[in-house]
Amino acid sequence: METATGAVGPARTARHEAICDAAFQMLSEVGYDQMSMDAVAARARASKATIYRAWPHKADLAVDALTYRFGGAPEPPDTGTLRGDLLALVTMACQLAQSPDGAVVVGLMSAAARNPVLSQALYECAYRTKRGVHETIINRAAARGELPAGTDPDLLHEVLHALVLTRRMWAAGPLDDDFAVHVVDDVLLPVLRHERAADGR
Amino acid sequence: METATGAVGPARTARHEAICDAAFQMLSEVGYDQMSMDAVAARARASKATIYRAWPHKADLAVDALTYRFGGAPEPPDTGTLRGDLLALVTMACQLAQSPDGAVVVGLMSAAARNPVLSQALYECAYRTKRGVHETIINRAAARGELPAGTDPDLLHEVLHALVLTRRMWAAGPLDDDFAVHVVDDVLLPVLRHERAADGR
Repeated sequence: METATGAVGPARTARHEAICDAAFQMLSEVGYDQMSMDAVAARARASKATIYRAWPHKADLAVDALTYRFGGAPEPPDTGTLRGDLLALVTMACQLAQSPDGAVVVGLMSAAARNPVLSQALYECAYRTKRGVHETIINRAAARGELPAGTDPDLLHEVLHALVLTRRMWAAGPLDDDFAVHVVDDVLLPVLRHERAADGR
Repeated sequence: METATGAVGPARTARHEAICDAAFQMLSEVGYDQMSMDAVAARARASKATIYRAWPHKADLAVDALTYRFGGAPEPPDTGTLRGDLLALVTMACQLAQSPDGAVVVGLMSAAARNPVLSQALYECAYRTKRGVHETIINRAAARGELPAGTDPDLLHEVLHALVLTRRMWAAGPLDDDFAVHVVDDVLLPVLRHERAADGR
């Protein structure tokens, strides 16, 4: 039985960061299934004992490698309007989805579909850790009177990530400016403003 | 260079169907990367020459196996209201996503992320082939005055599939009745009705 101890993470030392960095590189180069703990140890010039003490299972290490790479939330955009902030946010998500880091996430998805520890890690890292950014955008829009106070930032998460990720995974079309405008004007704004309408009914 | 000749498909014979059936079983049991043309030939009791003539590349065969399995569009729900039809549709999608067939699609996603022929096949099979169902639901709603004529069925596709698939892949929560109600009331109806509002402005 695998556990997600790595999700909390061991104490952050330079040694641990080097191991996480090596693990992320391996995920990028060969994918989760082909990543071996021994190869990570060799690349990070760490002893296997060090690695297995901190991360008893490969899933734990993958969790922490993702947290190390994606853990820091980006600065929320602050353009002065909800639409401007959402466009900036979707554009950032599209750029990430097309980057080498995005390819690592996509590659992990299939492994995660059969591995609850990994899927939890992906959920935590690429979804929940950005909740604060979305909350800030929603709260600023509420302060400007564009949305009611208490609009649920989780709805913004859920819909934004689903649309960008699916577009990327299905290669359903380019992740360009036109797509960002479509996501914001045709989906996100109607969904968030519906909250406002529902609030007043 | 791989080509998507299998997407169009060879003449449908019992022999070809048996091969597609064997290929789908292999996709289910071992996944795309581990599926070999030789093993499919053995399971279908077909000659390798027959298989390679019809499907020069593995991606072509996977395409046709999916088309064979998912190609037929389901009967559109007809509950008498747009909300009822959408709830039935999302419930069906959730059931498929949790089924063994859904697991095959999820397993293929990672391979498809690095393989344009496969991603095109997935797009065609699980997305575009259902366009008629979505069009029927939208048109019936328009005939009842619930939506304007000309509401884009592709928007229904895009948002519905993205939300259900992402929920499944990230294991972000159960694909249950509460989720179906959430998708319909919080996302799909606001998005589709926004088209109506936009139409009238």
